[in-house]
Amino acid sequence: MKKLVAALDVLSSEKAVKIAKDIVDYVDEFKVNYPLVLSAGIKVIKDLSKIRPVIADFKIADVPHLAYMISKIAFESGALAVIVHGFSGSDSVKATLDVARDFDGKVYVVTELSSKGGEEYMTKFSVDIAKMAKKLGCHGIIAPATRVEKVKILREVVGKMEILCPGVGFQGGSFEVLKFADGIIVGRSIYESEDPKKSAREIREIINKRT
Amino acid sequence: MKKLVAALDVLSSEKAVKIAKDIVDYVDEFKVNYPLVLSAGIKVIKDLSKIRPVIADFKIADVPHLAYMISKIAFESGALAVIVHGFSGSDSVKATLDVARDFDGKVYVVTELSSKGGEEYMTKFSVDIAKMAKKLGCHGIIAPATRVEKVKILREVVGKMEILCPGVGFQGGSFEVLKFADGIIVGRSIYESEDPKKSAREIREIINKRT
Repeated sequence: MKKLVAALDVLSSEKAVKIAKDIVDYVDEFKVNYPLVLSAGIKVIKDLSKIRPVIADFKIADVPHLAYMISKIAFESGALAVIVHGFSGSDSVKATLDVARDFDGKVYVVTELSSKGGEEYMTKFSVDIAKMAKKLGCHGIIAPATRVEKVKILREVVGKMEILCPGVGFQGGSFEVLKFADGIIVGRSIYESEDPKKSAREIREIINKRT
Repeated sequence: MKKLVAALDVLSSEKAVKIAKDIVDYVDEFKVNYPLVLSAGIKVIKDLSKIRPVIADFKIADVPHLAYMISKIAFESGALAVIVHGFSGSDSVKATLDVARDFDGKVYVVTELSSKGGEEYMTKFSVDIAKMAKKLGCHGIIAPATRVEKVKILREVVGKMEILCPGVGFQGGSFEVLKFADGIIVGRSIYESEDPKKSAREIREIINKRT
């Protein structure tokens, strides 16, 4: 069954945990980003991990010794996986992988952002970055649901590696991407919904019909 | 006089503040990154700001609505400036600039990382990114002290915009870069020194001789 990952970009631990408990039956993993951990403290990763595994979407894009330090904090705080930017170069991705191995954790590499700006520079290297991620032995890649044709190409490049796609919903991405992806990441359509549980269930049903 | 920015990539507020107070006479600004704020909490920015202005080196590399949220937290927490990746695209840089204007803050755009991996993808776009940063009205760019010839080219592109360069010291970058840069960012050579005050003073003296 294809995955539904819920991005919880809210600003308090209480709100994140409340939504997480509400939607637990319909989602496979949670994704947290800096707005939540900077506002609520890194401990929120442990709190959410008790409900479902957490992907630390830290979009690491720094030199290797800092990539190492940042991923170490993420895994020590209970994250199942971290997200690193491929454009920073293979040395930084390797540094993140080194930490992941110590924690039996996963590394997802961003190929290109789902936003309009992702088409300016990143899109030109996303295939190369996917190849690099595969060669290094990363667990998966992050690819844009807003560009289904690109995800199709990336699927051919990475073979059976996991592909997760943000961008369905507010950003205009399509569920069509599930033809090539292993799961989708949904944020605002769930956490900004008046009824997150209902929204998560509806999205889960659409995913199930397609897979 | 050219700037010395001290990167404080330690893991506790106490240690960061102690080093900051030790070196205050020789440095112009502090730079903090995720390892410190994730370990010590975001409040460390306010604590350090009482000693010298703080650049939040969050290397923002996300879609616009998250770039906006992350920079807002940085400025609300007392940062003078944030660092954003140009690679993510102009929409994310603009989102960061929108927040900066509300706080009378500064935005520095990373052109290419000083690490080896910065030569794999980023270096091909760093001139374009510098042009974009200038066009959008950003305050400055971050360029690699490990590639002085590249900084020379970037200086021609950005005119009088501020250029800050990490990479002198542990990463092998050269003080030569001060011919083209407005300042250097030094991390481990200071914070890992047995005598941070002495190290900061020595670096300050080298900078002064060259400017």
